[in-house]
Amino acid sequence: MPEALDQLTTRLRAELGDAAVITDRATLRTYECDGLTAYRAIPGAVVLPSSAFDVQRCVRACRDLGVPFVARGSGTGLSGGAMPHTAGVLIVTAKLNRVIELDIANRRAVLEPGVINAAISAAVAGANLYYAPDPSSQQICSIGGNVAENSGGAHCLKYGFTVHHVTGLEICTPDGDLITIGAGKAAEAPGYDLTGVFIGSEGTLGIATKVYARLLRKPEAVVTMLAAFRTIEEAGAAVAAIIAAGLTPSAAEIMDALAITAAEKAVACNYPAGAGAVLVVESDGPAAEVESEHAAIDALCKENGAFEVRAAADATERAALWRGRKSAFAAVGRISPDYIVQDGVVPRTALATILREIEVLASDAGVRVANVFHAGDGNLHPLVLFDGAVPGALEAAESVSNTILHRCVAHGGSITGEHGVGVEKSPHMTVMFTDDDLESMHLLRCAFDPDGISNPGKVFPTPRLCGEPPRRHASQTQPDAEVVVW
Amino acid sequence: MPEALDQLTTRLRAELGDAAVITDRATLRTYECDGLTAYRAIPGAVVLPSSAFDVQRCVRACRDLGVPFVARGSGTGLSGGAMPHTAGVLIVTAKLNRVIELDIANRRAVLEPGVINAAISAAVAGANLYYAPDPSSQQICSIGGNVAENSGGAHCLKYGFTVHHVTGLEICTPDGDLITIGAGKAAEAPGYDLTGVFIGSEGTLGIATKVYARLLRKPEAVVTMLAAFRTIEEAGAAVAAIIAAGLTPSAAEIMDALAITAAEKAVACNYPAGAGAVLVVESDGPAAEVESEHAAIDALCKENGAFEVRAAADATERAALWRGRKSAFAAVGRISPDYIVQDGVVPRTALATILREIEVLASDAGVRVANVFHAGDGNLHPLVLFDGAVPGALEAAESVSNTILHRCVAHGGSITGEHGVGVEKSPHMTVMFTDDDLESMHLLRCAFDPDGISNPGKVFPTPRLCGEPPRRHASQTQPDAEVVVW
Repeated sequence: MPEALDQLTTRLRAELGDAAVITDRATLRTYECDGLTAYRAIPGAVVLPSSAFDVQRCVRACRDLGVPFVARGSGTGLSGGAMPHTAGVLIVTAKLNRVIELDIANRRAVLEPGVINAAISAAVAGANLYYAPDPSSQQICSIGGNVAENSGGAHCLKYGFTVHHVTGLEICTPDGDLITIGAGKAAEAPGYDLTGVFIGSEGTLGIATKVYARLLRKPEAVVTMLAAFRTIEEAGAAVAAIIAAGLTPSAAEIMDALAITAAEKAVACNYPAGAGAVLVVESDGPAAEVESEHAAIDALCKENGAFEVRAAADATERAALWRGRKSAFAAVGRISPDYIVQDGVVPRTALATILREIEVLASDAGVRVANVFHAGDGNLHPLVLFDGAVPGALEAAESVSNTILHRCVAHGGSITGEHGVGVEKSPHMTVMFTDDDLESMHLLRCAFDPDGISNPGKVFPTPRLCGEPPRRHASQTQPDAEVVVW
Repeated sequence: MPEALDQLTTRLRAELGDAAVITDRATLRTYECDGLTAYRAIPGAVVLPSSAFDVQRCVRACRDLGVPFVARGSGTGLSGGAMPHTAGVLIVTAKLNRVIELDIANRRAVLEPGVINAAISAAVAGANLYYAPDPSSQQICSIGGNVAENSGGAHCLKYGFTVHHVTGLEICTPDGDLITIGAGKAAEAPGYDLTGVFIGSEGTLGIATKVYARLLRKPEAVVTMLAAFRTIEEAGAAVAAIIAAGLTPSAAEIMDALAITAAEKAVACNYPAGAGAVLVVESDGPAAEVESEHAAIDALCKENGAFEVRAAADATERAALWRGRKSAFAAVGRISPDYIVQDGVVPRTALATILREIEVLASDAGVRVANVFHAGDGNLHPLVLFDGAVPGALEAAESVSNTILHRCVAHGGSITGEHGVGVEKSPHMTVMFTDDDLESMHLLRCAFDPDGISNPGKVFPTPRLCGEPPRRHASQTQPDAEVVVW
């Protein structure tokens, strides 16, 4: 163990107690990756704080000794944001799982970062409230991890992301200060929107120690429909028609033929036979609104070629309709030994084009791609199938996967919709951002973390020291050159 | 004229043309204040750029010569954010008023910063779309100014602020770089949410040169109601009951007896006689939803003591119901020679308490206070009346006004809801934020504007140089002290 790490664990054992500091190799190994299992690193040490002040003690020790730290919630992230640093400390928030306050009248919850996403809604269900963002991992992922990744979910089409539902934070800065940012329980706050910056910063600006979350009233009614189409183009056109009509369903998810095949094998979801694509679309809100939206969506699906449209009659049938969609990622494991889960975004109007491009790309490379996606907001999740035992197969799959991402950017989209940049996508940041754009983010990072100890090596494509002169001016000898990002 | 300013205007005349640079004293004087007329300063020079590159040329000249700059849209701000710097340049965006692109299918508009707020909705009305944030000044205020101040409006209860409707920006940084931040026309973007930080930064991080705005479908139906109550407590209780029932009207505005008296004198709005308070509440959305919400709100108003509830039958009647509310600020000028417009926020649950406290404060000080407020989100606008000709009257009014603000913060609220900090409220920032909180904002500011040339003297309570060592650690000899902000 390097000397700085040794000093650090000795200090933290004294300050937090022996049980809070893990250094034995076998236990450390259990923390070597998050949901992105392709990238692994065994942490130098793991610390389990029991309070915000424990987090502060740990970060101050890291600052004093120049040791990098990485925060980890439940480890369900899909871009390696919580991958440990071998010479650093992994700060695990599992014990910070208290609901500090439920202010029902004001529709706010105050939470420690280790509180499980689904537990928030469970805690306020009696008051007919819930917490809206619902990542697929909501039964196990933590609100602190949701804040780091700005997590969404199937319903973010209507309800938005974590940033739309967290109104304030207490954070421990990389400098070891506990500060409070945002409006907390009020509606607005002056000054810079540091809450907005912190949410989605993937652990590079410090650690959230307290989360102020907005609670919504449970919708009076929910209708879930499944529409079956012969082709994915028809399903895409139906979604485009729904959005163009100004309707805002709470979810609009498409699966293509390959994804349907995988889901049927895995969970026998009993989708209509002969479907080249299915669309799962949900409306929620006041009963009167849901009824009228449901009728409109049903008609638009049929106008765009749906040969069968089903609506769930109750919660059991709703769960059955969702089962295929929610199982899709895992189900693909049954039809292919290995696969890459891609996450990209296009403007909704480019959906049909990108789907055709993916088909051509896959066909040219002889690679199978299953498409499962949040169609309503243009967030694709192409699953690129391969067999790791076949020489060259991984490389072919990676090439297709990367090309898809670059095409998303070319259409004015993004390299990630909800999985984050982490370690996986940092090389792609330069595809989307100019040197000047990245320099601006780097300036902000350096303002909070001048020594680069908070989750180093993530998000940014090339590690840099904060003292280095900015690169921006070199590229600007031609001041009138058009600025092109999309 | 100081030498640097002289060099600057010479350089800009060469680069932008003579007509774009104003230095004659009489014209400069017309720019001496924004909507906060109590604070005035004649700018060193005024520049009128015609393109983003003109803005860049101007900012680069300022950077090179160490001259401060202030951006100004339409000058309707109420906290002095666009008050000029006597030794600096006022960059006026009036000529940057082009609608660059209307992407109807994708529901996005791309705008220059000088485009007038109401012009956006006008441009897309034919497609049945509109731009949601609607400050009272929407007929003249600019989208660039809205971005700087994160402007809201009467309908922000349901639709949120500028930050919820602007998806990306091109900005000119204080360093003179044109960079693109945010997702633009896609739904999401990776990296730090610089768009969120920039919106509401009141001109201290640079100048927006291009704005990507989200467009919404016009609601199918709108119902505006006016409920009259004997007391303001009853009106407040009705709003609390509406929110507690999980309803989200698009607006919920209360006026007290003094504000009603002023409005009746000014515009004869014909509110019910004997009302101690009126509540204007509006529902919009699908017709079926609006109908059911309207019925529920009507019932809740009556349950809470409303002795009359009217609904507007058409657009003309709706305008009549709104007339009193929209005229209230100006109308108060008819019953008092002078008044201070305060802007504070409390959590909704503290509304009744703060209103009682204001009554006691005003009564103790022998000062009249008219209350007009966005009740739905706890945003108060107490109008503190005084006669500037009476010695000591201004001071007494200011004392009441300031105490109201401090009480808002004590209740867990904020020193401003929508008017911004500007020059007016910068001394109050320390009431709401700790040294550490402010230091974090200062770090961010310095990252973008190390020389402090972008709107200096605004927002932050004490001007500081970016090189100064942070003050934060001095206050932290007691690491376990409780962190209390609200």
